[in-house]
Amino acid sequence: MKALARHLLLELKECRHDRLNDINFLREALKDAAVAAGATVIQDSFYQFAPYGISGVVIIAESHLSIHTWPEYNYAAVDIFTCGMTTRPEKAADLITRRLEAKDAQLHEVKRGLMPDVPTSYPRQKVGLKA
Amino acid sequence: MKALARHLLLELKECRHDRLNDINFLREALKDAAVAAGATVIQDSFYQFAPYGISGVVIIAESHLSIHTWPEYNYAAVDIFTCGMTTRPEKAADLITRRLEAKDAQLHEVKRGLMPDVPTSYPRQKVGLKA
Repeated sequence: MKALARHLLLELKECRHDRLNDINFLREALKDAAVAAGATVIQDSFYQFAPYGISGVVIIAESHLSIHTWPEYNYAAVDIFTCGMTTRPEKAADLITRRLEAKDAQLHEVKRGLMPDVPTSYPRQKVGLKA
Repeated sequence: MKALARHLLLELKECRHDRLNDINFLREALKDAAVAAGATVIQDSFYQFAPYGISGVVIIAESHLSIHTWPEYNYAAVDIFTCGMTTRPEKAADLITRRLEAKDAQLHEVKRGLMPDVPTSYPRQKVGLKA
């Protein structure tokens, strides 16, 4: 059984508080993380919430990265979802963990799209065409 | 320990093939799913890839929904990430599963942001403010 995609779920606790409510910092961090993973950024959407907390998604040609922050708990939930054999999502996870200075980081990997007949090096590399 | 958010990972196999490459259908399905879950839609971003496959994200006030499709495998990976005590993400999962006519659907729930001191009914309801 081979997987079509790798999905990293990153639980970041005891993060540096001010960074969890800094929308520009988080946008930059996620885009840099996508590049570090070898992914191609297509678009980002980040939102600041009241009274605090930020949600952001970076769509990449190879799937997406997302972050949701709870500054009141010094916590961020990060997802790094990538397909393709050339991306290295763990590099994105490392970068975001360092940028947020998380003292407690837990990484869980979920294989998505387990199929019996996926070739080891499946050729599809997504190339974005905006609808 | 209480969780700040619920994250449903939905593996949809043996879906109806044509729907996995229909960007308007998928956009509508995910937005309808968000509403069915009691969430508030803020923005959606959907992309068609070459030669096939679609990635889409719906940002909701309570976090996000995402989908990535592989029509060549009749497969879709769906994530439904919600915070707040009033959302019902399983209703979103049900709706998407039905719309894609998936014959093989597996749902996994991950509690995100497990904290010792989260009140059972924490008051924060995100209200989106676009940055």
